[in-house]
Amino acid sequence: MPKQVDHDRRRAEIAEATWRLIAERGIDGTTMRAISAALGMAHGALKHYFPDKNSIIRTAFTHVFDSTNTRIRERLGDATGLAALRIFCLEAVPVEEVTILEARVVLPFWQRALADAELESVFVDAMSVWREQILRFLRQGRADGSVRTMTDDEVVTEQLLALLNGAQVLGTLTPRAATPKRQHQMIDAFLDGLRR
Amino acid sequence: MPKQVDHDRRRAEIAEATWRLIAERGIDGTTMRAISAALGMAHGALKHYFPDKNSIIRTAFTHVFDSTNTRIRERLGDATGLAALRIFCLEAVPVEEVTILEARVVLPFWQRALADAELESVFVDAMSVWREQILRFLRQGRADGSVRTMTDDEVVTEQLLALLNGAQVLGTLTPRAATPKRQHQMIDAFLDGLRR
Repeated sequence: MPKQVDHDRRRAEIAEATWRLIAERGIDGTTMRAISAALGMAHGALKHYFPDKNSIIRTAFTHVFDSTNTRIRERLGDATGLAALRIFCLEAVPVEEVTILEARVVLPFWQRALADAELESVFVDAMSVWREQILRFLRQGRADGSVRTMTDDEVVTEQLLALLNGAQVLGTLTPRAATPKRQHQMIDAFLDGLRR
Repeated sequence: MPKQVDHDRRRAEIAEATWRLIAERGIDGTTMRAISAALGMAHGALKHYFPDKNSIIRTAFTHVFDSTNTRIRERLGDATGLAALRIFCLEAVPVEEVTILEARVVLPFWQRALADAELESVFVDAMSVWREQILRFLRQGRADGSVRTMTDDEVVTEQLLALLNGAQVLGTLTPRAATPKRQHQMIDAFLDGLRR
């Protein structure tokens, strides 16, 4: 096997083990020791991939963000406009086992990003990708007549992005109130509001 | 001065110094040493108030939440319904110096609350208070005719709460996109939507 392929595969394995550990044990419980034990990998070899704690959370967040986007792409099919927006939203809020686990990585990532410019720029880029995606779906909805709200697309985009990020907090920390059903209703009501 | 008054005053001073340190330096930079230096207080005496790291962030979050609610009460005056809801929202999102600093305490609090049942219950209680408050304003708006949306009040409440929590993330970590102006537009558009 070519060395680069081997390296990339290893990197993917590490990312996969790392995000799950953070989701299950929290960022403080996800030590280098815990990661190397989960992977059956020598601490010294892991150090090559993770020179510091921020590289661990960056890898985990990037993995989670990429996984979410991959699921969105797979489920979109030919959907556009409001239908596409609904698919997008439901992969981004904690309503299923995997999305709940993902939110448990995103919250600690935010905390670290507040204190680290590189992590912050990873999040800025991620949210730019989502803003563009939401805007694209809204423009498709304007074109097909399903989006008729008088609110500017840029403002709707910011509302929806805030709603999705906020749901990650409420869904993980107040799950008795922000149940999956309630989150579905919240998104459906928001998207229905765009029709008027 | 009675001993209890002295004790309460000291506790308030510690909370005030602590939330500002976390807002400015991050939770990891807010060591017991940094707090005792800021207060000119012996480390041993501070240990009485802060037996562990979680007690620091709990004190800071509770202080921030109480301050926000005090400002809301002060600014509400005779406002009810949608007008009250607008005042409430604008104290909860990072659009001014103080609310931006407050959000910088809330994000690390969430991360810690994910891994600690006591902190989680502090947040559950805080969000219950806000859910009740939002519901009360919505009911007033229904009564005075300004709230006419067909969406259930419970769903609107969850949307708004998610929006406010999400704005704390976007306003602090993506401030070039989620400017104060954009956050105002976002809230105004949401509240306007409730009229229809």
